[in-house]
Amino acid sequence: MEQVFTYEQLLHFSENIFLKIGCSKADAAIAAKTLLSADLRGVDSHGVARLSGYVRLWEAKRVNASPKLSIIHQTPSTAVVDGDSGLGLVVAPYAMQVAIDKASQAGTGWVSVQNSNHFGIAGIHAMMALQHDMIGIAMTNASALVAPTFSKERLLGTNPIAVAIPAGKEPAFVADFATTTAANGKLEMLQRKNEQAPNGWVQTKEGLPSTQPGELKQGGALLPLGGDKEHGSHKGYMLGSIVDIFSAILSGANYGPWVPPFPAYVPMPLNMPGKGIGHFFGALRIDAFRPGKDFKDNMDQWIQRFRSAETSAGFDKVVIPGEPEIAMQNERLKNGIPLLQAVSNDLKQLGDRFSVAL
Amino acid sequence: MEQVFTYEQLLHFSENIFLKIGCSKADAAIAAKTLLSADLRGVDSHGVARLSGYVRLWEAKRVNASPKLSIIHQTPSTAVVDGDSGLGLVVAPYAMQVAIDKASQAGTGWVSVQNSNHFGIAGIHAMMALQHDMIGIAMTNASALVAPTFSKERLLGTNPIAVAIPAGKEPAFVADFATTTAANGKLEMLQRKNEQAPNGWVQTKEGLPSTQPGELKQGGALLPLGGDKEHGSHKGYMLGSIVDIFSAILSGANYGPWVPPFPAYVPMPLNMPGKGIGHFFGALRIDAFRPGKDFKDNMDQWIQRFRSAETSAGFDKVVIPGEPEIAMQNERLKNGIPLLQAVSNDLKQLGDRFSVAL
Repeated sequence: MEQVFTYEQLLHFSENIFLKIGCSKADAAIAAKTLLSADLRGVDSHGVARLSGYVRLWEAKRVNASPKLSIIHQTPSTAVVDGDSGLGLVVAPYAMQVAIDKASQAGTGWVSVQNSNHFGIAGIHAMMALQHDMIGIAMTNASALVAPTFSKERLLGTNPIAVAIPAGKEPAFVADFATTTAANGKLEMLQRKNEQAPNGWVQTKEGLPSTQPGELKQGGALLPLGGDKEHGSHKGYMLGSIVDIFSAILSGANYGPWVPPFPAYVPMPLNMPGKGIGHFFGALRIDAFRPGKDFKDNMDQWIQRFRSAETSAGFDKVVIPGEPEIAMQNERLKNGIPLLQAVSNDLKQLGDRFSVAL
Repeated sequence: MEQVFTYEQLLHFSENIFLKIGCSKADAAIAAKTLLSADLRGVDSHGVARLSGYVRLWEAKRVNASPKLSIIHQTPSTAVVDGDSGLGLVVAPYAMQVAIDKASQAGTGWVSVQNSNHFGIAGIHAMMALQHDMIGIAMTNASALVAPTFSKERLLGTNPIAVAIPAGKEPAFVADFATTTAANGKLEMLQRKNEQAPNGWVQTKEGLPSTQPGELKQGGALLPLGGDKEHGSHKGYMLGSIVDIFSAILSGANYGPWVPPFPAYVPMPLNMPGKGIGHFFGALRIDAFRPGKDFKDNMDQWIQRFRSAETSAGFDKVVIPGEPEIAMQNERLKNGIPLLQAVSNDLKQLGDRFSVAL
């Protein structure tokens, strides 16, 4: 059962909820827009379905609705931003703008962020760079659900990486992916449908292979991209580690098993070494390397060559990163955003509580 | 059958061969040291076993033994380097030094390189940053052996990524990995032993799953990290693409299927859009973000926590990236570097030809 809402409905609803918890007008607008970008792009697990989760973090006093964002250290091409426990949905666009401003001056800008919270989808922050003819990079750590290769302990988050690269006539190349074999949202879908997971997605709490999508609730773990050593999981583990270190050790946030959990009911880790969760952003001005036109002409050729590659039997075409999300966005702007009944019920309850109409 | 040589033997032999093909004294020394770093670290496929391959590229006039390396464009934090068709073994350290110099001034330095050749192992270039208390990044594109998800055509190289991160009391974190499920060298080993490859390493020229390690010689392809879509190969494809674009489209080198092949007997692609192969380097000064001591204390804690993680049955410990290579280097500096008979024969022939004693 699904119910369909217009983008504007969900945007205004979310904005009003953020206003009710004490966000400024500007912050509520940007938080809602960032949140809804996930629904538009088809990443339903990271969109409005999480709105009540953010509200619960605020209730638990783990999110500060009126943060004072600041740069606490900087050089011509770097900065560390203190998110003051704000919504990551607000902190991330601020920090990415700092990276873009640095890049305008120094060619590139690199910003590590401490004291933040979950920032929605990584891709939307990286994409801020595109309108400035820059490459954008965004990554974040997250609470530990992933076991490094050979470990039965969860020590890393799904730690996504997004890279947005401008093209000319072609749409931008936008990669945005968790450094695990599969995202947690996909496991939740399998559970709902009562189906098994493929090998290489999860392991038991003893570190044994499993195809049970509910394994995480039993103390099991997600697996790094690759799944097992034979299939390169040490590479996924290294990628997730790099994201963790760039996001948190460069900034002074929490890392590894000490990253604060998203569900407000999960207790905070003991002896936390840093502040909040960490992000990392980068912006590279294209013309700090080559004339924009030369770069874009080459990108167009790259995209066209890959898109027109001969495919294996049964497949239509090679996918250019970012294209499916554009198609989804166009479709949902036109025909609306379908929400599962459980999600729309949750939003209605939230609306009732805060006297905000959905 | 293996024959063991000392590091110094192989280093001086390689240096003398590079001198014989016309490298300057300084270039021959750096090329030999870079090449041998692969043997020391246990990446046998990328070390002295390739020396005659480099010589053949020089004979085919695809390598310029006395290149004039230059910066053709720059900003405070970026540069594009023209490798003048030099050995990548020489071009890469030059370009990485430019990145380090930029980082000294601007906080970070980012260098894209055109008109280069294969640069040995990525990790050794990234590690140049460590002695300056910087994080180092190195990547390169390579000739197309990898099929993007859904493609039966080879459009990407194994496009490795290396990231070296300083720690305090602990050894540095050094990740260095191809963006494929398995490296080509591992397939060659399986062929020699007449063994099958695991699923997810290669596909046939029709794009069908295969476990034949010799599939590449039949027109088949390596697979991106993940292996197939269900196991996240689109993520490996995105990673390899990002390396390709940063290395070649930011610099004006060749990309995708147009990257020059390493074997000198393979004809060059038609209608090449750029110059030579491309690399990308980065250096981030730790204290451009946080005081070095704070960063290193946190890195030490990170490393100790991961190393001491509880392991799954049958596994000894969680591996910290870079540690096995340090152990290998110590072992080989002490006990020598074993070479396969075919490799030592090849080196002896090379020595005879250039009147250089092994």
